[in-house]
Amino acid sequence: MQRLVTLTTDFGLNDPFVGTMRGVITKINPEAHIIDICNNVQSFDILDGALTIAQAYSYFAPNSIHVVVVDPGVGTNRRPILVQTEKHFFIAPDNGVLSLVYEKEERINVRHITAEHYFLQPVSATFQGRDVFAAIAGWLSKGVEPAKFGEEITDFVRFSTPRPKVLSANQLRGVVLKVDKFGNLITNISATDVPKLFGDTPPEFKLNVGRAEVTKLKNTFAEGASGEVFAVIGSMGFLEVVANRAAASTAAQAGKGSEVLISFSQPQFTAAGA
Amino acid sequence: MQRLVTLTTDFGLNDPFVGTMRGVITKINPEAHIIDICNNVQSFDILDGALTIAQAYSYFAPNSIHVVVVDPGVGTNRRPILVQTEKHFFIAPDNGVLSLVYEKEERINVRHITAEHYFLQPVSATFQGRDVFAAIAGWLSKGVEPAKFGEEITDFVRFSTPRPKVLSANQLRGVVLKVDKFGNLITNISATDVPKLFGDTPPEFKLNVGRAEVTKLKNTFAEGASGEVFAVIGSMGFLEVVANRAAASTAAQAGKGSEVLISFSQPQFTAAGA
Amino acid sequence: MQRLVTLTTDFGLNDPFVGTMRGVITKINPEAHIIDICNNVQSFDILDGALTIAQAYSYFAPNSIHVVVVDPGVGTNRRPILVQTEKHFFIAPDNGVLSLVYEKEERINVRHITAEHYFLQPVSATFQGRDVFAAIAGWLSKGVEPAKFGEEITDFVRFSTPRPKVLSANQLRGVVLKVDKFGNLITNISATDVPKLFGDTPPEFKLNVGRAEVTKLKNTFAEGASGEVFAVIGSMGFLEVVANRAAASTAAQAGKGSEVLISFSQPQFTAAGA
Repeated sequence: MQRLVTLTTDFGLNDPFVGTMRGVITKINPEAHIIDICNNVQSFDILDGALTIAQAYSYFAPNSIHVVVVDPGVGTNRRPILVQTEKHFFIAPDNGVLSLVYEKEERINVRHITAEHYFLQPVSATFQGRDVFAAIAGWLSKGVEPAKFGEEITDFVRFSTPRPKVLSANQLRGVVLKVDKFGNLITNISATDVPKLFGDTPPEFKLNVGRAEVTKLKNTFAEGASGEVFAVIGSMGFLEVVANRAAASTAAQAGKGSEVLISFSQPQFTAAGA
Repeated sequence: MQRLVTLTTDFGLNDPFVGTMRGVITKINPEAHIIDICNNVQSFDILDGALTIAQAYSYFAPNSIHVVVVDPGVGTNRRPILVQTEKHFFIAPDNGVLSLVYEKEERINVRHITAEHYFLQPVSATFQGRDVFAAIAGWLSKGVEPAKFGEEITDFVRFSTPRPKVLSANQLRGVVLKVDKFGNLITNISATDVPKLFGDTPPEFKLNVGRAEVTKLKNTFAEGASGEVFAVIGSMGFLEVVANRAAASTAAQAGKGSEVLISFSQPQFTAAGA
Repeated sequence: MQRLVTLTTDFGLNDPFVGTMRGVITKINPEAHIIDICNNVQSFDILDGALTIAQAYSYFAPNSIHVVVVDPGVGTNRRPILVQTEKHFFIAPDNGVLSLVYEKEERINVRHITAEHYFLQPVSATFQGRDVFAAIAGWLSKGVEPAKFGEEITDFVRFSTPRPKVLSANQLRGVVLKVDKFGNLITNISATDVPKLFGDTPPEFKLNVGRAEVTKLKNTFAEGASGEVFAVIGSMGFLEVVANRAAASTAAQAGKGSEVLISFSQPQFTAAGA
């Protein structure tokens, strides 16, 4: 049974961890087709893992199996889970790493994986990406029914993405969620937060992040002048602070977790929190 | 239709960019076989991308589809192109990143990709690796005729590799094109420039790059003494400055763009520029 | 003929080296299924390569072909070899990089690859991963009989893993073999050396590595307090010095090659060396 299995982990590419997982999956199901989404999720960073899988999975074919292992609680009693959405399957630790998938999906079915006879034995307490998650992905890809792996649960762990905070009718405070390979600062500000900013005639604004002050929203990187730091609507649906052929993170001296303050010349928000 | 699709990009492996492209391709054509050539091309560096694809593509099977995305002009009016050579297909932005492929091929057919119904919609202005290039690769791999994607053009962008300059009958000035993972300094000096240097009895020479002075041309890394910096004829066909089990780039304090001056004890060149 | 081919190299992912090898293999055998074990083995580090392949290969399906290229002697008269064990094939330079595989296998058959008509011609003196090892993997995966590649040899190169040294009845001196992506310090101390430490009721001990003094052996990373450095039995079967959501290597200021001194309150060893 040919089936796509994707990998999203924080195991990196310097050690045999990910290679070993690929071995386990293809040993169980030689027809499995393994594709890496990203194995350089930041170490121990569940939110980074959650962002990564949430951005990528819907671009894959229906019935894909997404293995997501960012698992600082490996070996404890956190549960391994199998999640089924309308079109996709996910195998992950129950630590919230699928939270942003849950946000995007209307129907989710979550099972606690308890069928230990599908695990590699003995199960290591420190590398269950190999002994639990890859093994389950192998068997699921081979056609084992989801219900065989364990019972449905409803008390699975989910967290909310940090959302921007409305400070006044004119002001919003967000945060840098992630810095990508090019040094683009990906904020948590989306169309839901400031619809007009993502529309055809965005309002005037002033954005501060790190040492940078940004007043321009452009369509493409190349529209920026050399050395200029500006904003674009990024491909992930978030406002990004970027530069043309340069790293905005360096120019702004900002990074993951940096505060993003955006002030509009016209009121944008009706209700303001404090 | 099973078909090989290769990826050469500057998207890196820390973000879901490349994984998402793999998803787009296999969602359109589940039979596509995706192989990474290199996704760590230096950010925004079209020449590095051009060198990378030009070194690798001919080692792949005929009819392979090579997706090459180093695209600082993404979202502007630079054209996406589909290039057909005698044995290979290339999908890339029309910014010169295929220049060194053009140099190696006698017959090239270049089309401006305009058939937007093959793109993922809406097309992002900042990530067309996903919405344009991966999507076109998916459809081409699935058997869509090249002519369906757009009209042939002849004014495509091409640049020449920086060539060494003959300074006198005895002297040549080149440049370091690239530093590889081992710290080897890959120069732009090839057999075309100094045929005898690449022959059976190479002439005496003195080469200066950064702080290193090199007078030995050896066959293998292991022939060098510990700490010695010397030259080899590299696997890419260029003269390389290297060390045995050490990084020549560190020893010479030289890197990409460093000047390489080579002086021969006997005249090598008939015509000298100034 | 569909066949799994794995890659373990020190070529890194910044250059087209590994991509080119993938091209060579699939050009010879389009049905080959290539899986990366790890291409970021430390440059020139044969022991690191030996550890990497030895940890991973047994997780792959029988009849897999493992290409292992950490090859500082490339181009010299070190031999390319084809190794057959009970269930696996290995293609590598004969420099000891398969030593830890030999340790784990009862029956090994080693051939000196001399059938140059299977090589890519001309054979580069500096990149035989492409011209020799990948090419042989392609042909072997396509069904060429092992005996066609060359004669059996018995004088192949093998080294022993550095083993811990018993200093007294209570004391053992080991070494850090490797630091993984999370900063875990993987020592060379295994169950063979101190059986009780790997058993159900481990004895009291004090371990010193770098600036860290460790007295706790825990089951999982998450059992450690914030900032605490402690030991676990790692997934590779070695004692590891780790931290919870942090890099033990940073906390201990220790790394590959650091001495590990472990003292037990009760005697563990009958024979002590000096």
